[in-house]
Amino acid sequence: MTSPLRTAVVIGCGTTGTSVALALTGAGVEVALIDGDPRASAEAAALGAGRAWTPRLPPADLVIVATPPSAVVDVLHSAQSRGVGHVYTDTAATKDIVCAEAELRGCDLKGYVPGHPLAGADAGGRAGAAADRFTGRPWVLCPYETTPAAALAAVTALIELCGAHRLDLAAPVHDEVLAELSHAPHLVAAALATRLAGSGAAYLRLAGQPLRDAVRGAGGDPWLWSDVLAHNAGPVADVLDRLADQLSRAAAILREGDACAPLELALTLQEGRRGHAALERAEQRTIQDARTDRPV
Amino acid sequence: MTSPLRTAVVIGCGTTGTSVALALTGAGVEVALIDGDPRASAEAAALGAGRAWTPRLPPADLVIVATPPSAVVDVLHSAQSRGVGHVYTDTAATKDIVCAEAELRGCDLKGYVPGHPLAGADAGGRAGAAADRFTGRPWVLCPYETTPAAALAAVTALIELCGAHRLDLAAPVHDEVLAELSHAPHLVAAALATRLAGSGAAYLRLAGQPLRDAVRGAGGDPWLWSDVLAHNAGPVADVLDRLADQLSRAAAILREGDACAPLELALTLQEGRRGHAALERAEQRTIQDARTDRPV
Repeated sequence: MTSPLRTAVVIGCGTTGTSVALALTGAGVEVALIDGDPRASAEAAALGAGRAWTPRLPPADLVIVATPPSAVVDVLHSAQSRGVGHVYTDTAATKDIVCAEAELRGCDLKGYVPGHPLAGADAGGRAGAAADRFTGRPWVLCPYETTPAAALAAVTALIELCGAHRLDLAAPVHDEVLAELSHAPHLVAAALATRLAGSGAAYLRLAGQPLRDAVRGAGGDPWLWSDVLAHNAGPVADVLDRLADQLSRAAAILREGDACAPLELALTLQEGRRGHAALERAEQRTIQDARTDRPV
Repeated sequence: MTSPLRTAVVIGCGTTGTSVALALTGAGVEVALIDGDPRASAEAAALGAGRAWTPRLPPADLVIVATPPSAVVDVLHSAQSRGVGHVYTDTAATKDIVCAEAELRGCDLKGYVPGHPLAGADAGGRAGAAADRFTGRPWVLCPYETTPAAALAAVTALIELCGAHRLDLAAPVHDEVLAELSHAPHLVAAALATRLAGSGAAYLRLAGQPLRDAVRGAGGDPWLWSDVLAHNAGPVADVLDRLADQLSRAAAILREGDACAPLELALTLQEGRRGHAALERAEQRTIQDARTDRPV
């Protein structure tokens, strides 16, 4: 059986796009690169991620749109109009609005499979692109009901070549889960960090480990993240309101200061500890799975 | 000049007490250990932190009370009554209530210097005790106006033998700073983690790096932390209320969903990024200072 994926075009040479391009190039796929900023595609090409795209190239087996959420549908529509490829996917961190926009804009939905690869624990802190950024990690697809098998096969081949695991989710479910597990926590990290901006080193040396860990997430690109948050507004707002409520209640318990306060707080902290342990176990399992997946 | 510190008693053989005892023993101080749980003091002794205390020992140069905040004054009062040492300090993470309680209980304030050593970035994740836990780190003292020079000298010698830096702060200032930089962030980590407790690994694999980093702080001892929070109730409640307000406002911006939402969010995220960078710089400076401090 021949692979459904011999040629690919990556549009958007940021960390995600370049990582995907490096994985595909490493697997023998011919990759062409496009970016609005010619320096970005030149840098990716210099890393060995592929060659610059030209209009003379025949339509690729797969086009990966790796832009921030708000740009996906414009880029997709334009690329489909120009016939850049046969099948299209994207990598944006929000899916519900992107899917609906693509439908409203009149994109060819039979040739577009919405997707979202999730970078790993070790990759998170790494600024640069890498071929193994998605190895052993989940890669969410949100196919339309009408998505043909051939389109799904091309995107599934992409996922396999990146060493990731395909996970199909309905777009609204994806967005609710990501709001809880990624988008809202990023905003919480930023909120914790805002008050530190004007502080001197003598003061900041007194910071405890929880704060240091918590604000590490606040280092990401503000424009990319605000785009993600605005495209997942409802679910993120729900999580933020719930957290605000939890913190207000804890503050009220502390202010009342009755004899039960330490017990009530300890129960919350105990539940938090159980959540922390569950997350550690899941991470451990992911690492084991990734090891098992790799050819020896 | 002879050292003001040849003998010491450590009461409370948890991570902090055992670390201090290890540092003192390593520096040639004779250390006697006390813990309500005889297994804890036996374990510390087995690590080389000192020998079990007996009532036959003469009063020590310094007694370090390394218990949770709510136990400090009881333990201090009882040890002073029995004449366990000449000078006393403690290591509790809250200072204002502890200082006031010691005064109200009629403890000998001329022989008691309230203190709080802050564990380092690298030590934070380490469960076990270590002699270098406080090396290069700030060690806050909250002396009373009447504290005699000899008592301060004994506690300063302790700080130097642990390789830490003395930082004098008024107790209410200490508590406000710690509420902001340590105590409230711990509760935020727990609040983020509570919802993960019942979740399966397949769901938790979708967790982003900010959440993984953020909930790392939620792994601490719930009873110790609820004791700390209840003893710093006002300042912690202030920080929690402010954070709850920040998150609610972000949620409102997201729900309104007007054209300015991404810009407003990006400004918050940008400020958070600046705070994150300030903290990273402070940490870097601390690491450099610690290196410079170490004898070559």
